Amino acid sequence: MGEGRYREGIGRIARWVGGGGVCYHGDMGDLSKLLNPKSVAVIGASRDERKIGGIVVRNIRESGFGGAVYPVNPKAEDIQGLKTYVDMASIPETPELAVVALPANMVIEVLGQIAEKGTRDVVVFTAGFGEIGEEGKRLEEDMGRFCGEKEMNLLGPNCLGFVSNLVPINVTFGNVAKNPGNLRMLSQSGAIATAVFDWFEAQGLGFGEFITLGNKTVVGENEVLEYWLSRERGDVRERFGEGLSDVYPVGMYLESIKEGKRFLELVREVSRNDPVFVLKPGKSEAAAKAMQSHTGAIAGEDAVMGAALAQAGAIRCEGIEDLFDLARVFAWEKTPEGPRVAVVSNAGGPAVISADVIAEVGLELPVIDDGTHERLLVKLPRAASVVNPVDVLGDALAQRYADAVEILLSESRVQALVVILTPQVMTEIEETARLIGELAAKHGKPVVCSFMGGNHIRKGEEVLNGYKIPSFRYPERAIKALGAMWRWNKWRQGLGEASGVVGSLGEDEARIRKVVSGAKEGGRGALESGESNEVLEVMGVAVPEYRMIEKREEAFLFAEEKGWPVVLKLVAEKMLHKTESGGVVVGINSGEELEARLVEMEEKVKRLGGEMPGLKIMIQKQVEKGVEAICGVKRDETFGAVMMFGAGGILTELVADRNLHLLPVSRSEAVALIEGSRVYKLLVGYRGEKPYDVDGIVELMMRLARLVEGYEEVEEVEINPVIVTHERVWAVDGKILLRNHEEGNNK
Amino acid sequence: MGEGRYREGIGRIARWVGGGGVCYHGDMGDLSKLLNPKSVAVIGASRDERKIGGIVVRNIRESGFGGAVYPVNPKAEDIQGLKTYVDMASIPETPELAVVALPANMVIEVLGQIAEKGTRDVVVFTAGFGEIGEEGKRLEEDMGRFCGEKEMNLLGPNCLGFVSNLVPINVTFGNVAKNPGNLRMLSQSGAIATAVFDWFEAQGLGFGEFITLGNKTVVGENEVLEYWLSRERGDVRERFGEGLSDVYPVGMYLESIKEGKRFLELVREVSRNDPVFVLKPGKSEAAAKAMQSHTGAIAGEDAVMGAALAQAGAIRCEGIEDLFDLARVFAWEKTPEGPRVAVVSNAGGPAVISADVIAEVGLELPVIDDGTHERLLVKLPRAASVVNPVDVLGDALAQRYADAVEILLSESRVQALVVILTPQVMTEIEETARLIGELAAKHGKPVVCSFMGGNHIRKGEEVLNGYKIPSFRYPERAIKALGAMWRWNKWRQGLGEASGVVGSLGEDEARIRKVVSGAKEGGRGALESGESNEVLEVMGVAVPEYRMIEKREEAFLFAEEKGWPVVLKLVAEKMLHKTESGGVVVGINSGEELEARLVEMEEKVKRLGGEMPGLKIMIQKQVEKGVEAICGVKRDETFGAVMMFGAGGILTELVADRNLHLLPVSRSEAVALIEGSRVYKLLVGYRGEKPYDVDGIVELMMRLARLVEGYEEVEEVEINPVIVTHERVWAVDGKILLRNHEEGNNK
Repeated sequence: MGEGRYREGIGRIARWVGGGGVCYHGDMGDLSKLLNPKSVAVIGASRDERKIGGIVVRNIRESGFGGAVYPVNPKAEDIQGLKTYVDMASIPETPELAVVALPANMVIEVLGQIAEKGTRDVVVFTAGFGEIGEEGKRLEEDMGRFCGEKEMNLLGPNCLGFVSNLVPINVTFGNVAKNPGNLRMLSQSGAIATAVFDWFEAQGLGFGEFITLGNKTVVGENEVLEYWLSRERGDVRERFGEGLSDVYPVGMYLESIKEGKRFLELVREVSRNDPVFVLKPGKSEAAAKAMQSHTGAIAGEDAVMGAALAQAGAIRCEGIEDLFDLARVFAWEKTPEGPRVAVVSNAGGPAVISADVIAEVGLELPVIDDGTHERLLVKLPRAASVVNPVDVLGDALAQRYADAVEILLSESRVQALVVILTPQVMTEIEETARLIGELAAKHGKPVVCSFMGGNHIRKGEEVLNGYKIPSFRYPERAIKALGAMWRWNKWRQGLGEASGVVGSLGEDEARIRKVVSGAKEGGRGALESGESNEVLEVMGVAVPEYRMIEKREEAFLFAEEKGWPVVLKLVAEKMLHKTESGGVVVGINSGEELEARLVEMEEKVKRLGGEMPGLKIMIQKQVEKGVEAICGVKRDETFGAVMMFGAGGILTELVADRNLHLLPVSRSEAVALIEGSRVYKLLVGYRGEKPYDVDGIVELMMRLARLVEGYEEVEEVEINPVIVTHERVWAVDGKILLRNHEEGNNK
Repeated sequence: MGEGRYREGIGRIARWVGGGGVCYHGDMGDLSKLLNPKSVAVIGASRDERKIGGIVVRNIRESGFGGAVYPVNPKAEDIQGLKTYVDMASIPETPELAVVALPANMVIEVLGQIAEKGTRDVVVFTAGFGEIGEEGKRLEEDMGRFCGEKEMNLLGPNCLGFVSNLVPINVTFGNVAKNPGNLRMLSQSGAIATAVFDWFEAQGLGFGEFITLGNKTVVGENEVLEYWLSRERGDVRERFGEGLSDVYPVGMYLESIKEGKRFLELVREVSRNDPVFVLKPGKSEAAAKAMQSHTGAIAGEDAVMGAALAQAGAIRCEGIEDLFDLARVFAWEKTPEGPRVAVVSNAGGPAVISADVIAEVGLELPVIDDGTHERLLVKLPRAASVVNPVDVLGDALAQRYADAVEILLSESRVQALVVILTPQVMTEIEETARLIGELAAKHGKPVVCSFMGGNHIRKGEEVLNGYKIPSFRYPERAIKALGAMWRWNKWRQGLGEASGVVGSLGEDEARIRKVVSGAKEGGRGALESGESNEVLEVMGVAVPEYRMIEKREEAFLFAEEKGWPVVLKLVAEKMLHKTESGGVVVGINSGEELEARLVEMEEKVKRLGGEMPGLKIMIQKQVEKGVEAICGVKRDETFGAVMMFGAGGILTELVADRNLHLLPVSRSEAVALIEGSRVYKLLVGYRGEKPYDVDGIVELMMRLARLVEGYEEVEEVEINPVIVTHERVWAVDGKILLRNHEEGNNK
């Protein structure tokens, strides 16, 4: 199996690519030629059709490819009846694409010959690079560097290649479904692709292009998205006639994302016209990382991914089943114009279940208007249920189904239809499917089906597949898919909303720079409490008055001057959560109390000072009672700065109020972030209380965003608690972490 | 279609049955004869095999039934070659079972003839009873009453009948799968049953008995469970040889539950030996009900159902797919002895996804021991991943899969195995399936598969089905099913734990009776604050000292005597949430402040007194700060009294901390309820704080349970907030609602 063996290590690809491999793509022009070649050389072509080099030649030839195919193999005279060349140099023209199926140690040499010949687009199937360890990693780095120098687009290595049913050409060594269609698929994993191909074939589902990425040494998801964005869209229904769908859906299976910010821009751009759905595994791995702050812990990799995709208009798949379901529903069905769904069923139970799920996924069951109600009464038997869901009863024949479907699709309030069928003894399964297919085409509204059962209903499913109407074995899946379609359309409809830009906040740059530089020169990873407070004050954030205490008298003086009650805090660089181990005493109301607490604190300083250098006592004026929130910004490795807002103080962990938004954030987005939080229930004024200062929180958010955007030394900022009163917002406990440039960054 | 037409109204059955129909079952002996008849009369038998009366005769005869079949039809001479009788009376023996397929208005008359003949077990297919409105409801009530008088067991009406592959006999008018098996199924809906039959047939899944209930006029789920409990179990594997399964799983689809408490006792009894999984739709309907208290709103029908099933050891299905998946996995697979799962895959991505899901469903991925690791290294290629999940690589042939499976099943730490396969071009799908089948049988540990794809992998699924190894198209489903199996086994393993009984609490019965009777005689639906406090105090619950204020002086006297700070409250029967509209003022620290607040309150009393009769001012001693919880008991219509505990005060709605336990509750169950709550994070002492008085909460729970159990006039009790300090627990605001016997009850 030495020849171009296909391997995929569990988690290993993700770790290798995600860890930041070489990356020379981007300036090399687009993938138009790679994915639409007129001629192909197969290097490592083989007579043996059990070997990759043999399968690929067969696949290209059987795909209906009209261009020239040049097998390259120094030993063979002809392969599958094709004239075979001993090397690239001897091919009579310059092939537009070179495909490599050779052992890893031979690839770089061959790339040299390919470059020599003038070919700039390459697919490398070969495994045995970064995914197998240090040696392979070096080999892959060399390959990447070479491609950069020669300006070559390279797909792979360690990939299954690609299929275009548009060219058509099948440059893979898998069993591939051949129907052309509007779907566009991208998979980092070749194995997932083989399962999808097999399933597509069973469903009769076509696709336009299916690209597998493998190790992404050069070509990654962003290059593919750029290529898709650059293509003429043309009329979907004219080109493919895939049911009612008028979009080119993009489905992706990704184990890592190379340049998160660019990726989101591209996804957002694609999402304007076409739905994007993404499966990204690895939740548990990401969740296991220990974090230095709440923002860090809450805004973990996986949560940021979810927020990022949602902001870019993409649908995140919860599992492999979602990826399959959404591929089918987007490929075939029109996107609903609104959330209002009608249900027709010949069984009560599944209809009740559907009503549950419709509510869960954000769809609605509209009340049917009087006219429609009348029409249903005329057509359906007396015992039928003519509210929505409509029950056509267990003995419904095809015509009764058709009557109900026709009436409901004619009703303007109904924006999508779900048809449920159980195979009762009199049920006309195939004829019902046929009539549904005809009516869906006539009315042009999205229809999804759930024919429930096994062998009997399979025949109905086949008829529905012919009409490009997706049928799901369980009504829950049908409705979930419809819900995702509507969410995407809703996102599109909201695209026009303003996304403001934050202007200068007028802070004193020099003072902030001085504090930050001082801390960095001292080799510290975080500002001290006093420094954080100073930075926040300069930024215009309200911080309760405070003083660092050297001598006990200073505390009494502060309290007399500023007024009671006061708070004492033990502060040190390393003590990030101050309320642990009695580091904060609140509600000190008198001189005697202050004296007693100071004595205790001083003892603590003595006791702990050894392990915690720089331990100090701070006195602070206690602010009014208010709602406690948390607000922070952290930098995500993949997607950049992300803002977090939620319930703070002791509620931080209790409420798990995780609301994220990638920067930049406009005022209206900030308001939406607050309104979407759980703590918002308190902020609007709980049970008749006055509302709290939400505008003040927005202002605070803008300033924190500005701090992270404007000062690259700042890795993370978090205020917890933010005390929100009816009139204003206090940053009581601020934490500013710095980037550690010695280590690249501090993760 | 007048003849025994089969109908199922959406939601209507549930409403009718759940609303409390007539119910004459229970004393009529068990269902042994009904479900295992030696002779059957079919009343309404027909020559027309498109009619129910024709299909049923055919189904009974084709099911292999060895007993006598007597078609009854006044017009026919023979039906399907069987001698036909003009009426029941003319049949030469007393048939053990009578099956009725006649229009609704003829059923009662025929029941009379059946009773006359001495037959006591009846199946009625006929629809057109309670589910169609008042007229049908009266008919159904008459029928129920008649069955009660004559001591007849009646299955239906409006049902699909039943199938026993043990007798064997098929008393339905559906297309039914005929393989005998260990599964036992119960469905209120006939339509769901038709889908399940079709799917069983496609999967090659057998079952023992499948019973549909319809309107449950006489026979309901409890009678069927009693029947199953009464049967000799026998050795499952000897009887059926359904793979490794050694249980008789019970799957149920129920739209309503008739006697919740008895149902739970029975489910609990069945669950000791055999898994029970239940699908119960109707979440959104239940959630829509408006409730009078937090406990009422939080402990809605659906949430109580979930808690009840979990307490009884049953698994609640989240959707129809769960019902299908669990039927298959319990029918075929052995239950895992523990949570530790190994995964073998030829694809990295799905394995990573599996790891995510394993963590989500409460299973574990154990680290493989050194010996096993060595053995894998020897058998697998260098590039394979030999940690768990084990990646056998994309080019794995059947033998490599078998090597990995054999090694992992031999490892003692591995308690179950998941095998994932993607159809790559070299993959030997069928041979891999065969070897997995052999190895699973050899090692006797549960194995579930996920062969991913469509047409290619279907052949592998068929081989696996032959070995009774469930394969799921998506690895997530396989793991979710395995997780449910393990949860059931874990519940069984914990069954020995003590479930204590609450002794006498020594309360002064006479005083409580007096307060409660007084309020009831006054026609009130709730106790006043003072009365609630009195009852709680008598029960031994700590209530902060309080006094109802008639004159202003009394307030000053109270504060001087009991000490500052104090709280003022406006209390009235109808004002259930006191913090609304300024009805509570806390933290009054001085005489001047008290005066000012009293003036305000008195004005409020004047202003609101008109709409709210009985409005009064209460002064109360303010208790120390503590964690605010909510604790209550309500009566659920189906399952009886249920206790709720969670975060209280302003967090009640913010945190949505819903923890329910049906009474009775032992001390250890009360502790588990508290430990399972979100607010427990605060109660254990947040960030180094001292822990709070959890024992005190348990004590409070016991007393509230006693109040509801001991005083049937009490409909609901709720303390919110319960203030929990480090030393004790205060019931600050208690609410006791009374049953309204005039209206039956106050729902």
